Amino acid sequence: MNFANLSFEQPLLAEDLLTISQDKRPLVTFQFEEYLVVKGKQVNNSLNEAVPLRHPIKIHEAMRYSLLAGGKRVRPILCIASCELVGGDESLAMPMACALEMIHTASLIHDDLPCMDNDDLRRGKPTNHKVFGEATAVLAGDALLSLAFEHIASNTRNISPDRVVCAIAELSTAIGSQGLVAGQMMDLESEGKEVSLNELEYIHVHKTAKLLEACLVCGTIVGGGNTADIERVRKYARCIGLLFQVVDDILDVTKSSEELGKTAGKDLVSNKATYPKLMGIDKAKKFASELMIQAVEELAYFDAARAAPLYHLANYIANREN
Amino acid sequence: MNFANLSFEQPLLAEDLLTISQDKRPLVTFQFEEYLVVKGKQVNNSLNEAVPLRHPIKIHEAMRYSLLAGGKRVRPILCIASCELVGGDESLAMPMACALEMIHTASLIHDDLPCMDNDDLRRGKPTNHKVFGEATAVLAGDALLSLAFEHIASNTRNISPDRVVCAIAELSTAIGSQGLVAGQMMDLESEGKEVSLNELEYIHVHKTAKLLEACLVCGTIVGGGNTADIERVRKYARCIGLLFQVVDDILDVTKSSEELGKTAGKDLVSNKATYPKLMGIDKAKKFASELMIQAVEELAYFDAARAAPLYHLANYIANREN
Repeated sequence: MNFANLSFEQPLLAEDLLTISQDKRPLVTFQFEEYLVVKGKQVNNSLNEAVPLRHPIKIHEAMRYSLLAGGKRVRPILCIASCELVGGDESLAMPMACALEMIHTASLIHDDLPCMDNDDLRRGKPTNHKVFGEATAVLAGDALLSLAFEHIASNTRNISPDRVVCAIAELSTAIGSQGLVAGQMMDLESEGKEVSLNELEYIHVHKTAKLLEACLVCGTIVGGGNTADIERVRKYARCIGLLFQVVDDILDVTKSSEELGKTAGKDLVSNKATYPKLMGIDKAKKFASELMIQAVEELAYFDAARAAPLYHLANYIANREN
Repeated sequence: MNFANLSFEQPLLAEDLLTISQDKRPLVTFQFEEYLVVKGKQVNNSLNEAVPLRHPIKIHEAMRYSLLAGGKRVRPILCIASCELVGGDESLAMPMACALEMIHTASLIHDDLPCMDNDDLRRGKPTNHKVFGEATAVLAGDALLSLAFEHIASNTRNISPDRVVCAIAELSTAIGSQGLVAGQMMDLESEGKEVSLNELEYIHVHKTAKLLEACLVCGTIVGGGNTADIERVRKYARCIGLLFQVVDDILDVTKSSEELGKTAGKDLVSNKATYPKLMGIDKAKKFASELMIQAVEELAYFDAARAAPLYHLANYIANREN
């Protein structure tokens, strides 16, 4: 099979994956949908336990409202899958996985604020500040951010503390003024302006890709991966991260608000930089396809059975419909 | 000397401290003002280096604007002093000390937002959102919060990683929905309502005291303290933390905006709970005095020379004028 011919609309099949794998065990037996459902449920259970409804009730209600709003848990699952990729058990990665979803949720709550993107809908529900008010939304974001680090530091078990510190360094770097915040900052500054491809990539790499990279790298660290493992996973992650945003932009143009569960077409209307706007919808889809191929190639260095979830995740991110 | 007779207006003298110290070395030789100046400068230098002005410029300008606005660095100095109390070198505590100031600053930036306390002045200067806009202020707070954990995880040297993880757990717990955020939440909810003494103490313990406790406990952890050391420092910290807020409330009533560098009397005007409002100014001062005495008694278990900064800090917090 020629991977250059893989198009965005043409899902990567398990049979195809075998041809680029060093290990020839039948990946077709891997049930990806079931994997997502099972891992998603385990993440949801852990998140539910991590934020009990206690005093002061309102702040915990606000935290739980957004955290348990039924996202796809892509970030926690990436973390668990990379932990398993290098032979680690899911339980090693679960506190880290939950922390990643807490941080992602915190950034969504703050991004939706009236002074930021001013969004009314998120995952098909009114945004946090619409339900709880702005002050509580700011605090709920802050609390989820703090809880993420607390959860890692207090609940990670059976991992040497130097790996925990290393993972915390990786994660915190990904979300600060050289990561997530930098992306959001440049995104806000680009509104209403002409944006070059370089600027567009800067925004997406920082706003989306760096956190996805941290998910995968942190999973590899807590799973026991060595330096070479970490660097390979990092390369895979960089492709996947950008892929995620490109697909997001494409979906934003092609889907309705009802299908997406958020205010669709908003980025385009507000003159915000998006890939389809800059390179056209067809080239954006081709770009997504190329990114997926590059990502999958990095996985060839690992045991094929353990790599199966990440093979399928690349394909899933490329072909998701909401 | 009878410590029960110590009043708020009567500073604790170094000679008095000797009488409750196990070690009779002349504490009078300790130059407290010089200690504050030297440590404050070292903290300022480290903070300046920790947040270089890089791309994206605006977010780093906003972070630096509030972080380097010239606070007294009480939190970092508490951290360094407790590290030294148990025999640790200042360099062990410096990344943690800087992180504490970053977190404190992040909370001030968010607290000042229009949707929160809506303050225009902080440390004698326009608040962050007044200068950089609300969106940047939200992001600057988020970035400082992230940077705090990054700074600890990436720059702490010569400390076993299990102590670093333990300190991160302590710190993150202090600032989340069971700490700082809980205090701010209850504070916002109490506006315009009658507040009991229990509720008032809850707000202050969570909004102020828990972070000060974390400063001291984290300093003790990175300084090499054992469990007994940590618990004694924790007791000292709880007294000091509450003392800090009581004095803050008293200053808010008795001083003008110009002297304080922030909008004075605001808590009273907006019907916010304060100690002077609830128990009267004289009883509030007596309460402050009692808290200082309890704090100082915990220090008697440590080497007097090493404990000198914390003896004097208790006195300084009780008697500060802005």
